[in-house]
Amino acid sequence: MPNETLTQNIKESVIELINQGNERGLHDLFEEIGNRDIIHLISHLNRTEQVQLFTILSPEDAADVMEDIPEVQAAEIIEDMQVEEAAAIISEMESDDQADLLQELVDENVEAILEEMEPDDAASARKLLSYDEDTAGGMMHTEYFVFHDDMTNAEVINELRRNADVYKDYPLKKIFAIDQKGTMSGVVNMQSLLLGKPEWKLGSISKTEFISVNHLDLFEELVEHFDEHDHYGVPVLDDNNALVGVLLRRDVREEETERLSREHLESQGIVGGEELRTMPVFIRAKRRLSWLSVNILLNMLAASVIAYHQDILTSVIALAVFLPIISDMSGCSGNQAVAVSMRELSIGVVAPREVFRVWWQEASVGLINGLVLGLLIGLAAFLWKGNMYLGIVVGSALMINTLLAVSLGGTIPLILKGFGIDPALASGPILTTITDMMGFFLTLTFASMMLTQLGGI
Amino acid sequence: MPNETLTQNIKESVIELINQGNERGLHDLFEEIGNRDIIHLISHLNRTEQVQLFTILSPEDAADVMEDIPEVQAAEIIEDMQVEEAAAIISEMESDDQADLLQELVDENVEAILEEMEPDDAASARKLLSYDEDTAGGMMHTEYFVFHDDMTNAEVINELRRNADVYKDYPLKKIFAIDQKGTMSGVVNMQSLLLGKPEWKLGSISKTEFISVNHLDLFEELVEHFDEHDHYGVPVLDDNNALVGVLLRRDVREEETERLSREHLESQGIVGGEELRTMPVFIRAKRRLSWLSVNILLNMLAASVIAYHQDILTSVIALAVFLPIISDMSGCSGNQAVAVSMRELSIGVVAPREVFRVWWQEASVGLINGLVLGLLIGLAAFLWKGNMYLGIVVGSALMINTLLAVSLGGTIPLILKGFGIDPALASGPILTTITDMMGFFLTLTFASMMLTQLGGI
Repeated sequence: MPNETLTQNIKESVIELINQGNERGLHDLFEEIGNRDIIHLISHLNRTEQVQLFTILSPEDAADVMEDIPEVQAAEIIEDMQVEEAAAIISEMESDDQADLLQELVDENVEAILEEMEPDDAASARKLLSYDEDTAGGMMHTEYFVFHDDMTNAEVINELRRNADVYKDYPLKKIFAIDQKGTMSGVVNMQSLLLGKPEWKLGSISKTEFISVNHLDLFEELVEHFDEHDHYGVPVLDDNNALVGVLLRRDVREEETERLSREHLESQGIVGGEELRTMPVFIRAKRRLSWLSVNILLNMLAASVIAYHQDILTSVIALAVFLPIISDMSGCSGNQAVAVSMRELSIGVVAPREVFRVWWQEASVGLINGLVLGLLIGLAAFLWKGNMYLGIVVGSALMINTLLAVSLGGTIPLILKGFGIDPALASGPILTTITDMMGFFLTLTFASMMLTQLGGI
Repeated sequence: MPNETLTQNIKESVIELINQGNERGLHDLFEEIGNRDIIHLISHLNRTEQVQLFTILSPEDAADVMEDIPEVQAAEIIEDMQVEEAAAIISEMESDDQADLLQELVDENVEAILEEMEPDDAASARKLLSYDEDTAGGMMHTEYFVFHDDMTNAEVINELRRNADVYKDYPLKKIFAIDQKGTMSGVVNMQSLLLGKPEWKLGSISKTEFISVNHLDLFEELVEHFDEHDHYGVPVLDDNNALVGVLLRRDVREEETERLSREHLESQGIVGGEELRTMPVFIRAKRRLSWLSVNILLNMLAASVIAYHQDILTSVIALAVFLPIISDMSGCSGNQAVAVSMRELSIGVVAPREVFRVWWQEASVGLINGLVLGLLIGLAAFLWKGNMYLGIVVGSALMINTLLAVSLGGTIPLILKGFGIDPALASGPILTTITDMMGFFLTLTFASMMLTQLGGI
């Protein structure tokens, strides 16, 4: 956790260095402080200070910082910078971070930035941008060692030495050999290269049996790939077996973490990507409202059940106290089941078609918890008004509604997933609308059946 | 996604092979199918079949499968196996998976299993178990290459060749040199080892400036470490600089993913660890109830506000329709803010002490969204009953309560975290209890102030 005074001091120093335009000083300071301090610092500068900072820093340093901070924030800063400076920074970023960042920008800015970049860099960035984010192509790096297989060991070693500066940042220390047509022909270990005779051809020491993935392989297949193969990275080939990139274990892991965060945010009603509080207030409000406004309509729909039975409520006003409790508790029980289903789907112990089995496993839990919660609230109702029938009405309504909520909560995510709808986003609102309606309906219907015994409480 | 018929076929084949006691057949089948199929398969066998399967498989194969399936499930199976067989399997697991699994078992079973293991293995497992899960010691591996620095290159290479079979599974291809007292003295690259003269001592080719972490370093420090240093793994030293393990980047990443999942489950009311539907019904029901029963009490507390103002409700029964809406919508708005705060805390753009700044940033969003939602519900109320005052009462109540909910939702996680309380677990219930109470109070108080204008709707 950043230390309060320390962070305050860092911020003041940075602002001073920015005002001085002191590139060297900023470079040294960023070398010194930790990654979490950097993230914290950047989010505490205002936009003008952020833009000045990234303009003063060398493109290399600026790229390093850009890679550390959240993508949405980096995108906002980039959009406020001069195109030439933005392009210089983006050119220095690792290919996969570069693609992620460009994806966050509006299209005309992407075009303007790509036009400022070196044609080779721009072409490679365009290539990555053309892939879906959840494919191997969308997650891969384009920094890797590749040489033609008719080069000699000596030539390759020479080439490696000459470009040591660029190559030292390459994440995977394996060499890929390609033939004249660009088709991947083998993999060479650094060790074999160093131990082999200088005049040997790369093709003669490369392992021609190697594991690769296809550029269009999907996230779930890639997770499985890395579960089965214990390596650090794997070559990515296109449909003609031409080498197009390298996919690292950590690229897939990062995507996994991002998915988990996104699912969690969506299930709590933060839709359309990550929200940072440094984003403009109106954008934040609008994005949250898009979900809230659907929700309030669903709520009104559910509440219409109460409106429809208003006469019963007039006779037994005490019920009004229990309606929000029944609504909230059914939502809670149902959401527990949703969370377990989401988890089981993501680790793969359950498949969407197993709706019936899951329903059965949830129903038993729903029955037990429904009984307990129903008894609790029934007892509370009885103790409050001294009327047993009130206890029976609200207790049995909550009991049945808990069973329903848990059954629905367990199965809705599977059904949505089966239909290709994002379960993280839609499960909650669908669940609570149905359980609210049913909860209100059950309570008021049971009450109407016992109106004489309930009379006037 | 597992193919339906395929999975059904796999399951049938496995059961048949289990009944035949066909180790070879099971081995071949598990070699062939993918990791997700294995996870899915195991969770679809009953306990007896699971235990039989793991008893028939060789300890090596059984350990591989154990490493793939969820820990809680692995623990349940191990607890139902014979101690000798369980110990044989656990001995074959990677040290960090081993420790994670042992941690899930009840203490007397851990003791029984450790007593069955080779004394060396048991001692190493005990060592790992002694660390907290969120320290470097609790996440590290104990499989790594370590040699005394007075050994010659030839001796080391010889040793590596002789144990190639064990060493090939070691995740980090670096050699650690220690001195006579066990203190870490340097790091050697495989390349330097192979390129050096056979008679050179390890100490002469080792890099004596190396990066390490302390065995008690906490998760957050370790995340920061790997953010700053782009390496695959790092030696873990105890307070005397003795080498005790190696921490891999992926160990920290895995912990991060687990934390995210746990936080998400907790925020939805799944407490006390992961739940799988294969766990006994009563345990699942009890764990979910522990959270629900707190929630129902909080709900009753909130609803007591309605009970207290029951006379107002009797006069304006239409309000009963709006109380659940106001309660639910305030909860939704507040939970959005909770989710953003949890995310900002986890990526480090905000620190717990910045409560005021976050409140300010949330208040503006709360004001806008409160206005919109208040107008919506106010308009709906007006259109329904044709009474403007009803619209004013419920509209302004939801408006103010949204502002409150968003303010609380943004700040509660920071405050809880500041006090060292788990915000994922407690934020939701605290938030909704307060917003429910305030929502009911505002609606009914505003109504009491306009009783004459509202009369009889």
